[in-house]
Amino acid sequence: MKYEFDGNPVMPKGFTCASRNCGIKEGDDDLALFYSDTKANAAAVFTQNLVPGAPIIAGREIIKKAKLQAVVVNSRVSNVGTGEEGVKRAYRMGVAAAKELACESDEVMMSSTGVIAVELPIEKIESGIIGMKADLGSDPLVGARGIMTTDTYAKAISVTTDDFTLTIVGKGSGMIEPNMATMLVYAFTDAAISAKDLDAVLRRGVNKSFNMLSVDTDTSTSDTMVVMANGRAGKVDMQDFEEVFESSCIRMTEMLARDGEGATKLLRIEINEAVSEKEAKIYARAMVNSPLIKTMAHGCDPNIGRMLMALGKCFDNTLDVDTLTLSVNGTVVFADSVKTEFDEPALRQSIDSEEVIFKIDLALGSGSATAYGCDLTHGYVDENAAYYSS
Amino acid sequence: MKYEFDGNPVMPKGFTCASRNCGIKEGDDDLALFYSDTKANAAAVFTQNLVPGAPIIAGREIIKKAKLQAVVVNSRVSNVGTGEEGVKRAYRMGVAAAKELACESDEVMMSSTGVIAVELPIEKIESGIIGMKADLGSDPLVGARGIMTTDTYAKAISVTTDDFTLTIVGKGSGMIEPNMATMLVYAFTDAAISAKDLDAVLRRGVNKSFNMLSVDTDTSTSDTMVVMANGRAGKVDMQDFEEVFESSCIRMTEMLARDGEGATKLLRIEINEAVSEKEAKIYARAMVNSPLIKTMAHGCDPNIGRMLMALGKCFDNTLDVDTLTLSVNGTVVFADSVKTEFDEPALRQSIDSEEVIFKIDLALGSGSATAYGCDLTHGYVDENAAYYSS
Repeated sequence: MKYEFDGNPVMPKGFTCASRNCGIKEGDDDLALFYSDTKANAAAVFTQNLVPGAPIIAGREIIKKAKLQAVVVNSRVSNVGTGEEGVKRAYRMGVAAAKELACESDEVMMSSTGVIAVELPIEKIESGIIGMKADLGSDPLVGARGIMTTDTYAKAISVTTDDFTLTIVGKGSGMIEPNMATMLVYAFTDAAISAKDLDAVLRRGVNKSFNMLSVDTDTSTSDTMVVMANGRAGKVDMQDFEEVFESSCIRMTEMLARDGEGATKLLRIEINEAVSEKEAKIYARAMVNSPLIKTMAHGCDPNIGRMLMALGKCFDNTLDVDTLTLSVNGTVVFADSVKTEFDEPALRQSIDSEEVIFKIDLALGSGSATAYGCDLTHGYVDENAAYYSS
Repeated sequence: MKYEFDGNPVMPKGFTCASRNCGIKEGDDDLALFYSDTKANAAAVFTQNLVPGAPIIAGREIIKKAKLQAVVVNSRVSNVGTGEEGVKRAYRMGVAAAKELACESDEVMMSSTGVIAVELPIEKIESGIIGMKADLGSDPLVGARGIMTTDTYAKAISVTTDDFTLTIVGKGSGMIEPNMATMLVYAFTDAAISAKDLDAVLRRGVNKSFNMLSVDTDTSTSDTMVVMANGRAGKVDMQDFEEVFESSCIRMTEMLARDGEGATKLLRIEINEAVSEKEAKIYARAMVNSPLIKTMAHGCDPNIGRMLMALGKCFDNTLDVDTLTLSVNGTVVFADSVKTEFDEPALRQSIDSEEVIFKIDLALGSGSATAYGCDLTHGYVDENAAYYSS
């Protein structure tokens, strides 16, 4: 099956979205609606953080029905650490969206993202949402705009095959090491897929993409990924669908990583021939999270010592320095237990780009994994050491 | 028992040290000797990194005898990732020291610290060490000088009680999350203590101090802590000794944390009333390592959301938001499941100091732990994104 990512993403048949400012942010869009004009099968995964936001507490109940017709999202205030009252306000947000869209309130998923331990300004949302149905359109980038926090641009991609369209809208650039899902990501398709199949495809896809993304090891209290399938395009080949779903998730993961707070580069860590997939994932995560790996990428320094260190600190894994091969952007830098002779100026120049690929071959087994992240820069420190930060 | 840390640290009876430049660094001291004029009982702990340096491979053999008369350390080149030849050179370094000091070469511990995957310039050490015995003196700060890498100052402390003296010399400011020991730390005492007791006191002390220190989550391939007791001061009360040993290790831990790469503040995370000590340690480490906690301390921002997030991302721990109390520098900021009313300008001013203490009371059990770290700054990025970094 041939497919490509659309330069101008579109919503699938029957799906629309809108964004507006309801007064939570100064002037930027802070409220988004995603809508299917018929009920859709749905699945979702949420953060594993022990202090989940109020929308997560509500969302876990709502997704049990496995049917959704809309998603409503506000940005700037996350409704986390807000007690019982926070949960009530999360439900009120869903009710307001259902009223505006004339659908069932238990078929609306709510998300909130932004500062923690601040009360959700629910009245602003309730009044601001009125009349928003009239704004609904087919450009997913419009919906993406309303869910942004520290992102530097709105993120949406879509793929249209002969049989169906899949569209993914996402946000998130700090407090990112999802576990179960990513920051906020919504996928929409007109393919006809049962809720059960959707759930399975979602979990497999997330494990290979968003769950292998880390900006700063810090798992948000609000991470959510929702997928909705309204069936408008009829039945599809499930293998085709899963292939498109997985590669779209990876593409969005790379977009989120590259736009990590302060980031100037995307890091991709590819671990091959580890003892097991489990060990490969541990190695990949250790490397992508290491501040010393992140800063060496930033400084264009092919620092072999730090790569050895980052692998070696996975104490419970298996490693044999004698069979280990390390390469950076295609250049082998360590093999046969010593540093290789390589053209250092050329390699430094190659690291001075948008993407740095670390490839580690362990020659121990058949486990492989890829992790996605970004470099560590002054920009990250500036963004997060601000006097009033989120 | 009353005791205090000496403003001018001294070596215990029978111990001396010296540093000099042997040509590995441009001009600063790069070679240090620590010497006991009689054989001492000894114990040591080393990094758990899977890619241990050559001196660690040799050191694990040497410590089996539980007797040492000297420690020889070079800085600037760590002798890690250097294959078989590296191990040979590590032993040659011990032989050179033994020859100079006229002691047994299997009673000399070697350490190397600095860049990884670079060959140890052993000839410089072998010729540079000649005549160094004549330099041996009683100021531990002189020995501390020769083992420095990115440290901003030489670190040594000593305590003299009525019965004995304990002196600790340490270094390390990046690639620090020891596991088993810290970067390089050497403790010397004239107390008479069996090797077995020394080993037990060392392990207990390290677990409460250096193993709870983290600058950047990155565990070095060279971490070593050695303790030597030459018995010159005779038998001592073991409880007294352990008390002094533990508090001295904690003091040195705080010094290393505060001097972490780019650091401007010491962070102390105190976890109380967790379900178990194990969970308390996991919480303490998660907080001290969180880039978002480190940057909020740097920015003097009492960000409650990040504290909740950092606790909540310890997925396998137990947490009840309703019984949780968070305080920063003595001010309660979160209790009864919501943010408290507190004097925010005053708290910001209090965080704008050398030390930030996060106290977390979980009210779930009797587990407690303290972790030590530092803030994350431009300085860290600068130091580690340099074009040629270590």
